[in-house]
Amino acid sequence: MLQCLKEFVCLFAILTALNRGNAMNARHLIDLNDFSLQDWNRIIQLAQEMMDHPADYRDACRGRLMATLFYEPSTRTQMSFQAAICRLGGSYIGFDNPLNSSVAKGESLKDTVRIVSGYSDLLVIRNSLEGAAKAASLYSGCPVINAGDGGHLHPTQTLTDLVTLMKEKGTLTSLTVGLCGDLKNGRTVHSLIKALSQFSNRFILISTPELSVPSYIKDVMDAQGCPYREVFSLEEAIPQLDVLYMTRIQRERFASPQEYESQRNVYVLDKAKMQRAQKDLVVLHPLPRVDEIENEVDFDPRAKYFDQAKCGMFARMALITLLMESPYENPGPPPKSLPGVKCTNSRCITNHEHYLPKTFKESGGMYICEYCDQRIVL
Amino acid sequence: MLQCLKEFVCLFAILTALNRGNAMNARHLIDLNDFSLQDWNRIIQLAQEMMDHPADYRDACRGRLMATLFYEPSTRTQMSFQAAICRLGGSYIGFDNPLNSSVAKGESLKDTVRIVSGYSDLLVIRNSLEGAAKAASLYSGCPVINAGDGGHLHPTQTLTDLVTLMKEKGTLTSLTVGLCGDLKNGRTVHSLIKALSQFSNRFILISTPELSVPSYIKDVMDAQGCPYREVFSLEEAIPQLDVLYMTRIQRERFASPQEYESQRNVYVLDKAKMQRAQKDLVVLHPLPRVDEIENEVDFDPRAKYFDQAKCGMFARMALITLLMESPYENPGPPPKSLPGVKCTNSRCITNHEHYLPKTFKESGGMYICEYCDQRIVL
Amino acid sequence: MLQCLKEFVCLFAILTALNRGNAMNARHLIDLNDFSLQDWNRIIQLAQEMMDHPADYRDACRGRLMATLFYEPSTRTQMSFQAAICRLGGSYIGFDNPLNSSVAKGESLKDTVRIVSGYSDLLVIRNSLEGAAKAASLYSGCPVINAGDGGHLHPTQTLTDLVTLMKEKGTLTSLTVGLCGDLKNGRTVHSLIKALSQFSNRFILISTPELSVPSYIKDVMDAQGCPYREVFSLEEAIPQLDVLYMTRIQRERFASPQEYESQRNVYVLDKAKMQRAQKDLVVLHPLPRVDEIENEVDFDPRAKYFDQAKCGMFARMALITLLMESPYENPGPPPKSLPGVKCTNSRCITNHEHYLPKTFKESGGMYICEYCDQRIVL
Repeated sequence: MLQCLKEFVCLFAILTALNRGNAMNARHLIDLNDFSLQDWNRIIQLAQEMMDHPADYRDACRGRLMATLFYEPSTRTQMSFQAAICRLGGSYIGFDNPLNSSVAKGESLKDTVRIVSGYSDLLVIRNSLEGAAKAASLYSGCPVINAGDGGHLHPTQTLTDLVTLMKEKGTLTSLTVGLCGDLKNGRTVHSLIKALSQFSNRFILISTPELSVPSYIKDVMDAQGCPYREVFSLEEAIPQLDVLYMTRIQRERFASPQEYESQRNVYVLDKAKMQRAQKDLVVLHPLPRVDEIENEVDFDPRAKYFDQAKCGMFARMALITLLMESPYENPGPPPKSLPGVKCTNSRCITNHEHYLPKTFKESGGMYICEYCDQRIVL
Repeated sequence: MLQCLKEFVCLFAILTALNRGNAMNARHLIDLNDFSLQDWNRIIQLAQEMMDHPADYRDACRGRLMATLFYEPSTRTQMSFQAAICRLGGSYIGFDNPLNSSVAKGESLKDTVRIVSGYSDLLVIRNSLEGAAKAASLYSGCPVINAGDGGHLHPTQTLTDLVTLMKEKGTLTSLTVGLCGDLKNGRTVHSLIKALSQFSNRFILISTPELSVPSYIKDVMDAQGCPYREVFSLEEAIPQLDVLYMTRIQRERFASPQEYESQRNVYVLDKAKMQRAQKDLVVLHPLPRVDEIENEVDFDPRAKYFDQAKCGMFARMALITLLMESPYENPGPPPKSLPGVKCTNSRCITNHEHYLPKTFKESGGMYICEYCDQRIVL
Repeated sequence: MLQCLKEFVCLFAILTALNRGNAMNARHLIDLNDFSLQDWNRIIQLAQEMMDHPADYRDACRGRLMATLFYEPSTRTQMSFQAAICRLGGSYIGFDNPLNSSVAKGESLKDTVRIVSGYSDLLVIRNSLEGAAKAASLYSGCPVINAGDGGHLHPTQTLTDLVTLMKEKGTLTSLTVGLCGDLKNGRTVHSLIKALSQFSNRFILISTPELSVPSYIKDVMDAQGCPYREVFSLEEAIPQLDVLYMTRIQRERFASPQEYESQRNVYVLDKAKMQRAQKDLVVLHPLPRVDEIENEVDFDPRAKYFDQAKCGMFARMALITLLMESPYENPGPPPKSLPGVKCTNSRCITNHEHYLPKTFKESGGMYICEYCDQRIVL
């Protein structure tokens, strides 16, 4: 019943979007949660349409310029954005090597953002520090898209996942979704669970005890009334799944090489496991993969991770188009710092770019950093 | 009276430019001084128009290709040029990392220039050696723009400054212009003084004795009949200014870290100083800035340094368009060397690319190197 | 008589090409030998036409996207391809620094190719391992062009040479072609001899005994009935030549610096030698050159190596257009490995990317590796 209602809300949002034109409420994409359900649906809908009729959008951004500020190299994400703007008839400028850039002359993020946003219609920013995209949005003369800020957020990956699911399953609702691998550190996984929790799905969380989902993610599923189970065996779980989302075990997340080695090969998807799965299973992976999916699975028609990468380009095309179409006003002076409070997260951008106003939301006796979401007990 | 006459000349030039189409007399932009006053006005005028009606120029360079040969990385300058050609509907190719390039296989500047100018309609070159752009122009199959040749010239920065002043002040004439910081080493400052000396302005030169303007720049102001004063205190000078041009104290210009530290924080523009300034002061800075302008000044409406960066894009758009429209003939064999004379500047391109003809102008018992302007006593 | 017949075949192919539209039989350009004579002629013909009427092709690839995957930097080749797609109204994405790319996260060539070919209409790949482009073609969702795979193949260079000869000589037939320098290691030279052997030309092979052509290349000339002579003196050979193809002696090919030094300056083309040559000699060089052609030769009208570089852009424009116009089907699963056989070439891609099927052609009691052409005795 609840599920049915949500599905209705979802459909309603799509219809509304079609009626009222494409302008979005949000000016930037920093965190997917900043967007309304309506905005999500609008993007997903438009991505779908672009996939079906790419030639119709060949000039959608003609004369428009996107800048990619990649303080940390990430070739695939950058190429996906660049392909997206080119497919829309626009152009791009940017850098992917901070050592080559003026950053090396000691320029602040803020100044670079003000200058480059003066040249461009859209900024895409990637940085190893958490909250960097939020910081950029305070100063930018055009919309900002967060293309990854450290281990914090990577909203266009989640958007990609949603667009792929809608394409492959025709719905985002009532699916049994298995997530497998590193469920503790993967921001991609956390963000996807948060998003899919809004659409009455069921989760099967497949991991070792060491790499299980953090409790705040369980709180999200509970709050949305989404059933979930934690299991160890991929083999046992796979027959029940509509969707299997595999993840990479990242070396850099582990304290020691031994710990990494003990975890890295626990979950490997191979032909034998695929034989136990449903005929319409959809296998996703944010890529790059290392060993967690055998190459022999690649040509199985249920392996959709390469299609997913392509969906990512269409998701970005839709996002770019909608943000560029929305009205934009230059920001005024940034807000004031909350006196006497400092973010305790050493990876937070506010601890590296010192001019940034230190601002927090108050919630339940906590301060929550508006850049990196760190919780600070009062 | 003289001033009035000059203003007339300036206006006349603009009107003439509008009447006779856009073709320029100069084939390259190596040194701004190679351009006639008419050419300057044409560029400034067109930049202004592009700012007012950007959509009208969206296809001005459609099908045209610009190459950026950045032997020395300079992300902001490169992005400004790339944004400019994209805004005109053209495309770009290029490199910004000489280690990645064929230069590492020992190719001469000359050969790279001949090859890449065969692909392109315009070359933009940056190099740490003085005279490199001049050298490139001897061999290029298309117009060359100097985007900085070591500490020697950076004419599009000066063009940017002029376009910004025209936009913000509506005139280039009869202004009281303060220049503050490193007036000794800054090529930007020297070039701007030379340019503004042609339009009957007054200068207030604000620096420490160690970083004051060289005497040949004073000669220029004297020759043009422009009054100037050298002062130490920014605080005392600021109320009199129409324009304040701040500059960065560059670490790499100093013999020792101690010397740098003693100078770097002498001049800092802050809110307090801004309160002493006129209401229509225009604050400029070539950027990147380090500490010489406080962040608190950024949202003062008189702070125009970020607008200046944007004006730079329009200045480059105008320049690119005009150079591409002008007729171009391939150069013949380069001139012969003057026998027995060698440039004494170790940073001169002729001392690094040995095939270059060593050519000099003779003036007042001196040889002046045609690449780097080094003066050599006969 | 044979020659006359071949010329007829060549003309016939051109006429046929014009009649039946532009679609090519080959889906990829890995090795020029994979193309039919008809395909070659079609490309050369179209390149010629693009040179004569560039404006007609300004939108030939509008809305199309090319990706350049340069695992090994090669700025000139990359810029030539990028210029080509821009001149056709298309766009490009790509990388030229594998350290910046996801490769550093341990992604396989195959996965990168599947992802990026999902974004693009054409892949251009360069890699230091032999057979890399062939490997890419097994997985790519769009046509692949080999832009150099180690010392193995570089077919667009040969295409460039043919387009240049056709432009400068009006024919590819019955020429006396001198090849000078490193004839042992130069893949460019081998590939050009193979190509020109199909058109009844005569060869004069000018080298030291240490750097003479390998015997399998002599076999090719013999099989095609092309007369050739091996000589030592460039000075003596030059008066007989219609074409002189100079090559660089590459330091990295020699076992010791002494060996390199002993060979590098044996052949230097200078004005004196040019005076002995025919009036309509055409001097070519794949570039970059080091010392083997004196700068004084550059402005001799017979020096065509810079025009050759420009012809390379047109050759690539023609190739890109034809491949993009040809129908393309996604490849299915790759073929199976031949059990128990492994390529013995340590530079072969199959010895670095282990998932690749190890496939071989059988010929005369040998296995020939389908990636790198290594011959393995059974």
